[in-house]
Amino acid sequence: MKTTQSSRWLFAAAGATALMALGSSGAWAQDAAAAAPAEAAASTKYIFNTLLFLIGGFLVMWMAAGFAMLEAGLVRTKNVSMQCTKNIALFAIGGIMFWLVGYNLMYDGVNGGFIGTLAPKIIPPADNDPGSYAAASDWFFQMVFCATAASIVSGTLAERIKLWPFLLFVVVLTGFIYPIQGSWKWGLGWLSPDGDGSWIQATAGAKFQDFAGSTLVHSVGGWAALVGAIFLGARHGKYEGGRVHPMPGSSIPLATLGTFILWLGWFGFNGGSQLAIGTISDASSVSRIFVNTNLAAAGGVVAALLMTQAVYGKVDVTIVMNGALAGLVSITAEPLTPSPLWSIIIGGIGGVIVVLTVPLLDKMSIDDVVGAIPVHLLAGIWGTMAVPITNSDASFLAQAIGVGSIGAFVIVVSAVVWGILKLTIGLRPSLEDELGGLDKAEIGLEAYPEFGSGSQRVGL
Amino acid sequence: MKTTQSSRWLFAAAGATALMALGSSGAWAQDAAAAAPAEAAASTKYIFNTLLFLIGGFLVMWMAAGFAMLEAGLVRTKNVSMQCTKNIALFAIGGIMFWLVGYNLMYDGVNGGFIGTLAPKIIPPADNDPGSYAAASDWFFQMVFCATAASIVSGTLAERIKLWPFLLFVVVLTGFIYPIQGSWKWGLGWLSPDGDGSWIQATAGAKFQDFAGSTLVHSVGGWAALVGAIFLGARHGKYEGGRVHPMPGSSIPLATLGTFILWLGWFGFNGGSQLAIGTISDASSVSRIFVNTNLAAAGGVVAALLMTQAVYGKVDVTIVMNGALAGLVSITAEPLTPSPLWSIIIGGIGGVIVVLTVPLLDKMSIDDVVGAIPVHLLAGIWGTMAVPITNSDASFLAQAIGVGSIGAFVIVVSAVVWGILKLTIGLRPSLEDELGGLDKAEIGLEAYPEFGSGSQRVGL
Amino acid sequence: MKTTQSSRWLFAAAGATALMALGSSGAWAQDAAAAAPAEAAASTKYIFNTLLFLIGGFLVMWMAAGFAMLEAGLVRTKNVSMQCTKNIALFAIGGIMFWLVGYNLMYDGVNGGFIGTLAPKIIPPADNDPGSYAAASDWFFQMVFCATAASIVSGTLAERIKLWPFLLFVVVLTGFIYPIQGSWKWGLGWLSPDGDGSWIQATAGAKFQDFAGSTLVHSVGGWAALVGAIFLGARHGKYEGGRVHPMPGSSIPLATLGTFILWLGWFGFNGGSQLAIGTISDASSVSRIFVNTNLAAAGGVVAALLMTQAVYGKVDVTIVMNGALAGLVSITAEPLTPSPLWSIIIGGIGGVIVVLTVPLLDKMSIDDVVGAIPVHLLAGIWGTMAVPITNSDASFLAQAIGVGSIGAFVIVVSAVVWGILKLTIGLRPSLEDELGGLDKAEIGLEAYPEFGSGSQRVGL
Repeated sequence: MKTTQSSRWLFAAAGATALMALGSSGAWAQDAAAAAPAEAAASTKYIFNTLLFLIGGFLVMWMAAGFAMLEAGLVRTKNVSMQCTKNIALFAIGGIMFWLVGYNLMYDGVNGGFIGTLAPKIIPPADNDPGSYAAASDWFFQMVFCATAASIVSGTLAERIKLWPFLLFVVVLTGFIYPIQGSWKWGLGWLSPDGDGSWIQATAGAKFQDFAGSTLVHSVGGWAALVGAIFLGARHGKYEGGRVHPMPGSSIPLATLGTFILWLGWFGFNGGSQLAIGTISDASSVSRIFVNTNLAAAGGVVAALLMTQAVYGKVDVTIVMNGALAGLVSITAEPLTPSPLWSIIIGGIGGVIVVLTVPLLDKMSIDDVVGAIPVHLLAGIWGTMAVPITNSDASFLAQAIGVGSIGAFVIVVSAVVWGILKLTIGLRPSLEDELGGLDKAEIGLEAYPEFGSGSQRVGL
Repeated sequence: MKTTQSSRWLFAAAGATALMALGSSGAWAQDAAAAAPAEAAASTKYIFNTLLFLIGGFLVMWMAAGFAMLEAGLVRTKNVSMQCTKNIALFAIGGIMFWLVGYNLMYDGVNGGFIGTLAPKIIPPADNDPGSYAAASDWFFQMVFCATAASIVSGTLAERIKLWPFLLFVVVLTGFIYPIQGSWKWGLGWLSPDGDGSWIQATAGAKFQDFAGSTLVHSVGGWAALVGAIFLGARHGKYEGGRVHPMPGSSIPLATLGTFILWLGWFGFNGGSQLAIGTISDASSVSRIFVNTNLAAAGGVVAALLMTQAVYGKVDVTIVMNGALAGLVSITAEPLTPSPLWSIIIGGIGGVIVVLTVPLLDKMSIDDVVGAIPVHLLAGIWGTMAVPITNSDASFLAQAIGVGSIGAFVIVVSAVVWGILKLTIGLRPSLEDELGGLDKAEIGLEAYPEFGSGSQRVGL
Repeated sequence: MKTTQSSRWLFAAAGATALMALGSSGAWAQDAAAAAPAEAAASTKYIFNTLLFLIGGFLVMWMAAGFAMLEAGLVRTKNVSMQCTKNIALFAIGGIMFWLVGYNLMYDGVNGGFIGTLAPKIIPPADNDPGSYAAASDWFFQMVFCATAASIVSGTLAERIKLWPFLLFVVVLTGFIYPIQGSWKWGLGWLSPDGDGSWIQATAGAKFQDFAGSTLVHSVGGWAALVGAIFLGARHGKYEGGRVHPMPGSSIPLATLGTFILWLGWFGFNGGSQLAIGTISDASSVSRIFVNTNLAAAGGVVAALLMTQAVYGKVDVTIVMNGALAGLVSITAEPLTPSPLWSIIIGGIGGVIVVLTVPLLDKMSIDDVVGAIPVHLLAGIWGTMAVPITNSDASFLAQAIGVGSIGAFVIVVSAVVWGILKLTIGLRPSLEDELGGLDKAEIGLEAYPEFGSGSQRVGL
């Protein structure tokens, strides 16, 4: 009798009181007791992982504001309202499109292939959530990444694109282009598997690695922006007479604010991409990612500071900002395996890339208003190719295949979409509208009505 | 002896060593063992719930900055310092008043009635905290909601109210008006219970539902603002000669920043209002709320984009911002039960309301500088009345009773307070001070001293 | 046999199935059962504590943006790009220096002494993390504190220091000055221990107490700024002809934004300094700290509102902002033990200090562009000396020893560094460069190129 009593205590200890009614055989007791603590841990993990997606997600959502401020600061006064409108609108459209088609195209049933399914993402009831996190928190986290790709395009094409063709491009980018290429890696498509029968493993010795999206997010935005810039042409007067005419941005402090917002948001971007924080190991990894992300940005800043001082004899603050962002983009493909020193170096090289390539684009008469192509495309490629330096599970060939195939896809589809838009509703406002500023022509509200539009003083 | 030993092990396993001294009767042991794992889980839950209040709370605190930037961007240069001062001051005053009287008026001993008790909120020592979260974290979360109501009033009354009468109104609003009506629902007052003997249940078939405050926060701020706008009158020159004279805001990018800050903060506003994240079900609910909140904002943006383009032939960026905010207000009464599609629709209708009612207010010569009445009051009412569409536990009648009774209370008390202030210290500055700008008259510091006050160019 | 079986159930209940193979002696069973639940709790605690460092850390990182906006708003247009550059650069340099030497100087092997070791902080692999949090999360949290000290210096010295000498000072401050004095208390150096053989305990009856850095962070930045201001001298024209010439800042809304950012970040600054949130008691403490931090800021705001109204007949918005910040600095030395009322009072006195000492510095011809010396140094000293009022474990003498010794150290070393910089590369730009603005002279980009530099209108 005594023994039976102590086995009851055992049940109680496990919190499995309901099972007591089922009898008190030793086997039952053992199962119940063993299962109960594991259950508890699973629930705690689930909440931690969900929290990571939610916190990481709201930090990345905040990056939309960062892009808005960066771009509002780097365009001229007469186009600031337009740029604000574009950034609010693209975040809204991105969210709706990613729900309507994007999420399932990217994540549902890709299965080693090239595309998912075409359906709105249905957020399941709580009891159908995956075992390790809330489905809705994952959707939220992935959605803000999708919107980030669109934010990148917005900056490059500033000051000379009409609102609606831009927004229609965003519809396609966030609903189709981003999700389809994203499915190849993060949706477990053809670039992803490393087991037997994996083409990329067999060909390149490794799967393609892109931890938080140097290629999947940043280069995608960058390619779409580059193709758009070519279809659009440069701002009127930018490259007149074979010379580059600087058109300085309207507000350095707003651009600075944007840079700090992006820096902050990037902790969510990279840290959240660990996708889990419910174990000691995951929590440690997220922490290392924070450190490396910060040091890469710091490396980019210091590289840009020293290089612009050396090259131009003065520090150029917009290059310094882009140095920070290039450092962040560079570490995004692999923020976990580098040592702190490697993070500084990887980010620093990102900063060097910005200093070297900003004038190069001007030489090619590619008008990138905010420097998004050097920052997001070129530093994104660099960061992706740098993964094998610190991650022995990566191969340069696999990285090149990922960069190349995604680049080719985005270039081709973007070109088709930009081409159709150009041929149908047209991309550019009239010359008069462009010179007078898009705020008056398209938005009907000047950004700073009491300070003058500045059109008398700067940039024609 | 063996058995006695194993019962000791049981105690140890349960961590209830203190109970060992009490003896080792079976009943005691069973209780102790059963309680211990629940305790452990309770501690984890407690921390999760507290974290939700703290994170949600700092996000809502950040909304105070959002209102400040939105309003600083939407008033004219000559009143920007004033608007900044008001927003910093109201957040400080709201915090102190909510501690001094508000919290206990709202939450202490309401018990189905109309008001709590009159005493400062004493934050108890840790071992007197409620079982499921830290008392101080709850106070912090509720306090920032109270301050939000005051922020709403600030925008409507901009450019023509003196500093001190405004701040005195904030004292009453955050110390008394907001907490008293808040006690009716969130303090478990007469609008809240659904059991037997509940008047609202018996009358309307359901209790009043307001998840995160479409009515309790947003419409309260909106009513107080509306009554204030009527007592104050319009800005000089706004409706001169029977025509509406636009007085465009000084900085669209600051208003954009404010919009993004509010959008971000709203994840804390609605997500935190789940009030718990310590179980799988709660974590899933918070995640769904994030998704729905975002999609409702997106719906408001897209509706405002399309409608302003259709109606005015141009997109109006301030309407688009207010569309986002109206979408957010609309989903706030029930961010959990709607599907994503319903969230887009509910938010989209919020956006439509803004487009339709902004000119309506002008027609009635009600001068709402930032559009807070359409956004917070009208979309707040819409959102509250929309709850029964997706939540079968709600009834239209109960919602109407809640909206109506809270509206009536706030209108009456606000009118008394505004009236007393008008008759005593007066609400408006002299005409000369208003025309010269409140920054010079009341603050002694221009917002942009080097850019000119703009008074030559715009708005008289 | 029965008893053996029930001991097996015990193992199972503890989830320590591996131990079952080791035998089933009573002793083993007891250990395993007792240890296992503690283990499980340890993993959860580890994640909670790590989350606190990461969330607290990103909030404090965000303060770097707050300082940037505050300073960009409070300097004149012609120096805004410079101020932005300095703030981005100092955060990057601070991060790298704190990794390169600072962290280990501050935390590694101080052991009751005056300094740690000279080596880069190596982030260990996950399985070498300390038992209660991820090493990298701690590094991240401490790093952003280090950067904060540098941000403080930036504001005081604005508008008249060249970029590179400032950045070189930041190298020394973040790599050496801050970490060495920090080691005395937070690195468990000579100001820290309270056991037997502790000099400070024996001398002053208590160890030195500084919860989140009123002295270790804020006064350090303040002393370094004060010494720098003396070495630099005032801006040209500031104190000409024995009178104080106001040089109003370029953008009150940006300064307001900065204030709100700092207020938000301070929840991480003080809340995170609890250093743990894995128990009910710690979660409660963090929550109380949030409440007290907010109320102290509110007290500072209200004090500044009332006093500037009383003294000047008008509310001064920059003093109100500095009142908020002074309130925050004042509560930073002890945000846990004060009651809400004491928090309001402590913060309020901080606000009073600002109102009284801003003119005093002008009288001494010490040119502190943003008011950082009253806010961070004087309110920091006040807050540190106020600890014994509410914390019975503190003594006034111990607090004075801490304040005095850290102050003396920072004054002497700062003076040496500023002196060397002045004698070698020089601190000040040419008079022509200063009058024309540092943006043109040193950065090559005006902050608002379309709005005019304002040099015609204001400040010579």
